[in-house]
Amino acid sequence: MKVRSDKYILVINCGSSSLKFSMHHFNDAELKISGTINGIGDRTSFFILEDNQGQETSHKKVNFDNMEGAVEAFIQWLESQPFSVTAIGHRLVQGGPDHRDPEIITTKLLKRLDEFIYLAPNHLPGELKTIKAFQNAFPRIPQVACFDTAFHKPLPLVVKHYPLPKTYQHKGLIKYGFHGLSYAYILQKLVAEDQTTLNKKIIIAHLGNGASMAAVENGKCLDTTMGLSPTGGLVMGTRSGDLDPGVIIFLLKQYHLTITELDDLLSKQSGMKAIAGISDMQELLAKETIKPKAALAIQIFCYHAKKQIGALAAALGGLDLLVFTGGIGANSPVIREHICRDLNFLGIELNQRANNKGQETISLNTSRVSVRCLKTNEELMIAKAVHHVLNHSIKH
Amino acid sequence: MKVRSDKYILVINCGSSSLKFSMHHFNDAELKISGTINGIGDRTSFFILEDNQGQETSHKKVNFDNMEGAVEAFIQWLESQPFSVTAIGHRLVQGGPDHRDPEIITTKLLKRLDEFIYLAPNHLPGELKTIKAFQNAFPRIPQVACFDTAFHKPLPLVVKHYPLPKTYQHKGLIKYGFHGLSYAYILQKLVAEDQTTLNKKIIIAHLGNGASMAAVENGKCLDTTMGLSPTGGLVMGTRSGDLDPGVIIFLLKQYHLTITELDDLLSKQSGMKAIAGISDMQELLAKETIKPKAALAIQIFCYHAKKQIGALAAALGGLDLLVFTGGIGANSPVIREHICRDLNFLGIELNQRANNKGQETISLNTSRVSVRCLKTNEELMIAKAVHHVLNHSIKH
Repeated sequence: MKVRSDKYILVINCGSSSLKFSMHHFNDAELKISGTINGIGDRTSFFILEDNQGQETSHKKVNFDNMEGAVEAFIQWLESQPFSVTAIGHRLVQGGPDHRDPEIITTKLLKRLDEFIYLAPNHLPGELKTIKAFQNAFPRIPQVACFDTAFHKPLPLVVKHYPLPKTYQHKGLIKYGFHGLSYAYILQKLVAEDQTTLNKKIIIAHLGNGASMAAVENGKCLDTTMGLSPTGGLVMGTRSGDLDPGVIIFLLKQYHLTITELDDLLSKQSGMKAIAGISDMQELLAKETIKPKAALAIQIFCYHAKKQIGALAAALGGLDLLVFTGGIGANSPVIREHICRDLNFLGIELNQRANNKGQETISLNTSRVSVRCLKTNEELMIAKAVHHVLNHSIKH
Repeated sequence: MKVRSDKYILVINCGSSSLKFSMHHFNDAELKISGTINGIGDRTSFFILEDNQGQETSHKKVNFDNMEGAVEAFIQWLESQPFSVTAIGHRLVQGGPDHRDPEIITTKLLKRLDEFIYLAPNHLPGELKTIKAFQNAFPRIPQVACFDTAFHKPLPLVVKHYPLPKTYQHKGLIKYGFHGLSYAYILQKLVAEDQTTLNKKIIIAHLGNGASMAAVENGKCLDTTMGLSPTGGLVMGTRSGDLDPGVIIFLLKQYHLTITELDDLLSKQSGMKAIAGISDMQELLAKETIKPKAALAIQIFCYHAKKQIGALAAALGGLDLLVFTGGIGANSPVIREHICRDLNFLGIELNQRANNKGQETISLNTSRVSVRCLKTNEELMIAKAVHHVLNHSIKH
């Protein structure tokens, strides 16, 4: 048995209506426990704890009107626990053009991030509030910001630059890309398994309620479906994905939407929700055979995913490896099958049985493209980054 | 020698700053003469006439402040000519969801089209004005409207429906697609050459100042890059193509653009013009080696085109035939080469020499995908449609 110190890294991943956390051993980032407070702002929400095997150990009904309440309650709970938290890592959607790699949160950084709220107005304010709450509660514990844009730093100019006047770049209008912690985890796992992965042309499809894909070659991200904001790219649960700008001008002119209404429409009322009235893929799949609109929503989701695989393969000039991950990608054989159907011409041949079982390799031996199904672990990447940043900052 | 009546179909194709026309024999739609008034609204514009072989026969400097003036002068010129115009065909960008196929222009149709101006506010008003000017000048000559959306009528639901609430469909928010007359001409030509083309998976790339692609199978259009408006899809000379909606919300919030400014920005100040200050591909290519921004603009244009070929191939589940057409597609070997580079994995192998010469087939014999380079002829399609519609209307 390994001997470990009882020091822990706490990882915080704060979504729009959920607060996820996990506790990792400081030295090796191995998971100790994790938990979620979900349904924040809904009538019923739950505080769920899981052990290091992902087994539920506690499930309590709670009620939080907003994130602040949930964070406060979580901090109280934490203070009652026997863990010695040495550092806290926070997932942040966006840090602007100059903050990509993980870094220690300072007053200066927070001030700078405040200035970039406009780049991620739906996500960053809540994340920053949460950081401040943890700073107030644990003023002596170092906290580290991990940005979801880090993985996409190497995007080439031809991808990063929008075909819009350069003047708009002054306020940060470039393609950032998101889900970077997930992509980094998957790539790290693949390379650990097989060093030659670094020479391969890879598409990683992170399909969840938010969904994106990344094209990777020589271990570097060359393109990704999301852009300035997490609303672009693929059709998602409640987000439209990329659109003909004429559509937006039509909505503004014909329906006189305000900017706030437009933002709400495209990020919260679009995607599969707009087609079927349902955004959750599990629910959609359960109703696929009885509700034609649910079937159409699934088809639209898969169709756009399929097209993006084609587009990114063209960007890479070929494809060696396709990885499905994320809540939908890792858990829905039907969706993986639907997306890969008709992609034989790219050299993709699914092994139906392996796919149905959700095995880690789901392509046939004869498949020119290897297809994988892997669980992501953004929290582990954050814990590792926290360890790295703190070790590094101590040395210098 | 064929004996022909001296009756003619006049075809009018009215752009934002140019008026193109051609005169076709009524019975077989064969070209008699054609011409252009270009640079309308600019300081210098030219009235150019060409014979039926495309050889310039006249080139006069003229000056028109606006389209009305040009149309008026053209009508005066026409009345001085010995042609007996039997019918006039007009190219229209858009006729709304219910007007796709060519039809005789009636007061009722014009009224209906007036109601759909909001679907194509940058193109339809000028086109309708031109029709009215010709109606005033030639009240007894039947005129036929040919819509650029006809070809895309068969788009499947999964493509046609935006992932936006259905309520917006009431005002016509669906994917229409454009350049349909060009696609129809190319497809007709291919099928005339070889009937088995109807079984093939085809991508037609109409690349010009406006640019789009269509995916065709069983002779039907299954997908296309443009959507509700001609601003979407590929990066173009001055248009952005599809965007992350977050980009537009960013522009609206951070730069307080009005809707008109936004529309102008995305349709007239974006695309390659925004990158290099130049929108014309010939000029960009001439400066490619001396101006890095021109090179970047070309790269961005080709990169997006390449990705869309991959995306549409995925939509089709494979690719048998790729056709380049349009001003850039048919005339620029460098661009075709640049787009096809790295697409070997799709089975595309260009024949460099044939490509440089602009031959009709530009792929190697060994290429799994046949690649063609064909001049389009939208005017011929209009002339044929006019003949068909009038013959049909007389019989009924």
